Amino acid sequence: MVPCMGMSFYDKLKFNPDGLIPAIVQDHTTGRVLMMAWMNRASLEKTVETGKTHFWSRSRQKFWMKGESSGHTQSVKDIAYDCDGDTLLIQVEQIGAACHEGYRSCFFRSVENGGASDKITEPQLETPEQMYGKDKKKT
Amino acid sequence: MVPCMGMSFYDKLKFNPDGLIPAIVQDHTTGRVLMMAWMNRASLEKTVETGKTHFWSRSRQKFWMKGESSGHTQSVKDIAYDCDGDTLLIQVEQIGAACHEGYRSCFFRSVENGGASDKITEPQLETPEQMYGKDKKKT
Repeated sequence: MVPCMGMSFYDKLKFNPDGLIPAIVQDHTTGRVLMMAWMNRASLEKTVETGKTHFWSRSRQKFWMKGESSGHTQSVKDIAYDCDGDTLLIQVEQIGAACHEGYRSCFFRSVENGGASDKITEPQLETPEQMYGKDKKKT
Repeated sequence: MVPCMGMSFYDKLKFNPDGLIPAIVQDHTTGRVLMMAWMNRASLEKTVETGKTHFWSRSRQKFWMKGESSGHTQSVKDIAYDCDGDTLLIQVEQIGAACHEGYRSCFFRSVENGGASDKITEPQLETPEQMYGKDKKKT
């Protein structure tokens, strides 16, 4: 509706002191929030360039494409950023399970009884072994 | 479906070195992602206890209830957490605009043309002056 030209959107973003920004990933048809992961500028540029989500793994200190070993890639439909420029919201078409535990969404557990217990709210689509085999890394 | 008793869900969460965890807030009826903010354990406990979202402001180093000055509170309908225990997804009933700029969602800007420009994707419900008056803080 209102174009904001002249400044790259990358320059409007606030990466944290580690050079990272959180990216919320949402199923573009159902609205289900699938996962949250971190991007650095290079992984965001790669995401824009290829149309597939790429992230930065803080635990493995490694650049990775979602689905690179499982085949469960995410095709980008829209990239939004928030008023403070410090969080991304990415709409995707998700193949299969987004979660490395085989659930469609990583947020498959909800709290019950004021935090005293929780429940699993969706079916497991695959086991991790089905997704990755025994020796593959889980992406 | 599957209860996981015996351990408080707080103990299943991984707060970062600053004692914080990101909380994605989603409209429970439309699925629109409204905002992302940070909670410490005390603000999460207060959220569970009161049924209204409370956060920790990193910039102001202050505990705050969403809507405490604007009246745009969030009533909690569900709290989920992800497979790694390091992100929360909270379903809410949002009164008015979630964004301090007067938009329903903080994610009102989407990227166009490979990052060269962006567009505003939803109407502004109120101006910040209408929400807060001139001298109030923006929550």
